[in-house]
Amino acid sequence: MNTTEKTGTTPTGGARLMDGTAEAARLRGEVRSGVAAYAERHGSTPGLAVVLVGEDPASGVYVRTKMRQAAEVGIRSIEHRLPADTTQDALLALLDTLNARTDVHGILVQLPLPSHIATDAVLERVRPEKDVDGFHPVNAGLLAIGKPALVPCTPAGSMRLIRAVEPNLRGARAVVVGRSTIVGRPMAQLLLMADCTVTIAHSGTRDLPALCREADVLVAAIGRPHFVKGDWIKPGAIVVDVGINRIAGDGGKPRLVGDVDTDAAMSVAGAITPVPGGVGPMTVAMLLANALRCAELLAGGK
Amino acid sequence: MNTTEKTGTTPTGGARLMDGTAEAARLRGEVRSGVAAYAERHGSTPGLAVVLVGEDPASGVYVRTKMRQAAEVGIRSIEHRLPADTTQDALLALLDTLNARTDVHGILVQLPLPSHIATDAVLERVRPEKDVDGFHPVNAGLLAIGKPALVPCTPAGSMRLIRAVEPNLRGARAVVVGRSTIVGRPMAQLLLMADCTVTIAHSGTRDLPALCREADVLVAAIGRPHFVKGDWIKPGAIVVDVGINRIAGDGGKPRLVGDVDTDAAMSVAGAITPVPGGVGPMTVAMLLANALRCAELLAGGK
Repeated sequence: MNTTEKTGTTPTGGARLMDGTAEAARLRGEVRSGVAAYAERHGSTPGLAVVLVGEDPASGVYVRTKMRQAAEVGIRSIEHRLPADTTQDALLALLDTLNARTDVHGILVQLPLPSHIATDAVLERVRPEKDVDGFHPVNAGLLAIGKPALVPCTPAGSMRLIRAVEPNLRGARAVVVGRSTIVGRPMAQLLLMADCTVTIAHSGTRDLPALCREADVLVAAIGRPHFVKGDWIKPGAIVVDVGINRIAGDGGKPRLVGDVDTDAAMSVAGAITPVPGGVGPMTVAMLLANALRCAELLAGGK
Repeated sequence: MNTTEKTGTTPTGGARLMDGTAEAARLRGEVRSGVAAYAERHGSTPGLAVVLVGEDPASGVYVRTKMRQAAEVGIRSIEHRLPADTTQDALLALLDTLNARTDVHGILVQLPLPSHIATDAVLERVRPEKDVDGFHPVNAGLLAIGKPALVPCTPAGSMRLIRAVEPNLRGARAVVVGRSTIVGRPMAQLLLMADCTVTIAHSGTRDLPALCREADVLVAAIGRPHFVKGDWIKPGAIVVDVGINRIAGDGGKPRLVGDVDTDAAMSVAGAITPVPGGVGPMTVAMLLANALRCAELLAGGK
């Protein structure tokens, strides 16, 4: 099946690193300019409501990072911290209020929610034009029919990294491993819109290594450390590693690794995102871009 | 790339024909029973509004077929024929009325619309619960996140034909050729939900024959007569031919053919849909199933 025997090419041993930290900084710069232009036109700055239910420590860290970066680009954030025993009805009522407020343009509900709350019902309550995460069915639908309004941040950020390496993707074979609704599926839609020939693989896929070896663009979004091996990668491929897995490193100290065995992949791939410092920073920066987009959509722009 | 040389198998020369006419009759029987049960519970039958703008002869034929078959299963249809110069505002106003009517459960707007009307705006005006065609972004979105409510009729009908041949598709390689929003893309979503490894191919795809040869399930939805050749097909594959193309036959008499060279494919495929008599009848029957589903959704069922 594999038509790209390594003997046919000369691995350089040094894939280009796709620097998400630097690209995210560029994107934040664009958002900052966009926010300034918006403020000049409308006399106010975009407002991002951040809703956090409960005390999950990781969620707390994410929320602080998002709010700090929002402030850096000039986006006001409005924090709502609710106790873990908040009822679903109370949360939905808060969303109705935020949906109606004219000074709130984007609404972010930090996941995961406590288990007594139906996540779908909450995400569907956010007004689609204020859906910074792109999780509302209307936004998933617009993406599915090729008219995206608000695209989930991780795939949108991944796409921007890919385009920075290769602007013309027409005809490229893309393989997305993982079919989650927040990463894998929207990622496949974006690659299709970029005219790739797109395959979605998952836990039921047969001979995944051979399939991956066909990919000019390989996106790993599985959530299993070092799941994708070096010899699964087509020489010269663009490899996007969405995984952020915490494993025990030297001396038991926790260490973040991706879904790809990066060291092994480096000698085969043409370009690869590191973990950390790849997709992660792009996700947060894209949230800010989406918040600005929400404000523009609500102001009647496109 | 092709690992399935024909010399390795013995073509039987006789693929199983996937009889859409018979399967559609079975589906209509199920809908008829469902309509009777609905009528018993609710004291009324589901109502399907059919909106036709202009005098396109083919559209007229489709609409008559749909209304006749609706009557056969006990679904009331309410016809609205509007002149070709109907304004978009007038059409939207009619949809608002139909959206509000409690005796109308499904709304079908026959396409194509005259060019002075924005099709997207019209399709987005239909209340999602009454969207028998599954074209509203909310329904596309629910399908994209794996929670389908109303699925477009052609891919839904195709899927039923596939499942009649092979109920367990887990791990099967599926290739969908064509990425339209009403066939190719939703077809890919359905195959993914059935745990296939799904590839979407299109006009930009490189080496399409080799890609098709990997497919255990091949869906052709391109709209070009006999585009898919016999030697593009993996021995034993399930081939679904969505194309309905009118060509000049013997003596110049028009003849309907599919996107697949059926005669050549017959000796390689395991099962194949004929044209006509394959996907076509399923599409209309699925419309009736969707109309019943609309009525059930509106009544608060799932």
